Amino acid sequence: MEERQRVRRPGGRSARVAAEVHQAVTELVGERGYGAFSVRDVAARAGVADSSIYRRWGNLENLLADVVLTRLNARSPMPDTGSLAGDLRTYAANVAREITGPDGPVLLHLAIALSKTGQQGVRAGEGLRAERTRQLQSMLDRASERGEDAPDAFAVLDHVLAPMYIRVLFGMGPLTPEYIDGLVDRLLSVPGEGCRARRA
Amino acid sequence: MEERQRVRRPGGRSARVAAEVHQAVTELVGERGYGAFSVRDVAARAGVADSSIYRRWGNLENLLADVVLTRLNARSPMPDTGSLAGDLRTYAANVAREITGPDGPVLLHLAIALSKTGQQGVRAGEGLRAERTRQLQSMLDRASERGEDAPDAFAVLDHVLAPMYIRVLFGMGPLTPEYIDGLVDRLLSVPGEGCRARRA
Repeated sequence: MEERQRVRRPGGRSARVAAEVHQAVTELVGERGYGAFSVRDVAARAGVADSSIYRRWGNLENLLADVVLTRLNARSPMPDTGSLAGDLRTYAANVAREITGPDGPVLLHLAIALSKTGQQGVRAGEGLRAERTRQLQSMLDRASERGEDAPDAFAVLDHVLAPMYIRVLFGMGPLTPEYIDGLVDRLLSVPGEGCRARRA
Repeated sequence: MEERQRVRRPGGRSARVAAEVHQAVTELVGERGYGAFSVRDVAARAGVADSSIYRRWGNLENLLADVVLTRLNARSPMPDTGSLAGDLRTYAANVAREITGPDGPVLLHLAIALSKTGQQGVRAGEGLRAERTRQLQSMLDRASERGEDAPDAFAVLDHVLAPMYIRVLFGMGPLTPEYIDGLVDRLLSVPGEGCRARRA
């Protein structure tokens, strides 16, 4: 019985409902902004019952986190080009394309909005970041296994993702390939712990 | 006559009105989020006439930009410690204190929200960034005049401010002094941006 189903069937009705609900959320965030709509609004827009959303996602925050996670991660698989510089450049270009695409600013605002919605939102946001960090770390681990000197995932967040996010969020011009590659090159040019360690 | 005054008297009625209006905006953004209140709401909260706000700021976007500019800049004057590393560490610590303070997340969200409110918001946001860039550049210029190898203001935005902003916006733990100093040290360690000259 549909009410008790716990395992999702890929490609079936369950997947169609998820796609419709995700699209409804993206549209509502874009039109009204975060915090200005309810599960009921999402259900009405997607043409599904409120109960379908609660059954599957539990609450609005989990649904929003799932939308952001799916759009900012799963749609952009981690590259495997054979070199760390190649992987990071491709990864950064993929992220840039996502956040400068039609839904990108909405998704970024949503990721940020989740962090200020109390415990449920914070937990959902943490889940989102943990998943992204895990995917990124697997790419960095491959580089280490090849003998390359890889930065940690937080350095990638701070020095490749954060500058791109902030420039998009502040509406500061396009993210050119030169700019994106420059962020990656700079990250990889920092020697170990940086010049403090080398001076010591 | 008050209606025609163009020059503000510091510390007088004009300054009190500005302080009350700024406080009202900060409270309303914190309570309702951006886009969920009007000039009328601000005026009612501050206990002033709508016309006083329109006369002084022209529109809501300019008022919001003025609030962000005042709180994130003027309240944190650019340091002048005698060395670029000292200036950047102090500056970064000041910014960290602002954005992790009680009104910090609200101010950051407001700065970001301004970028997606059409032309008026974009212009107000550009004014905000231009003022911050100008102040930062004067600090970097002093370092260059002392013979230090200074990065440009955009590198400070990308590699010191953006990581701190994103970590606060995503609710990712405290900004420790070690973390903040590490961002500055890394910025100055990039070849051609400080470390090489200081090692020489």
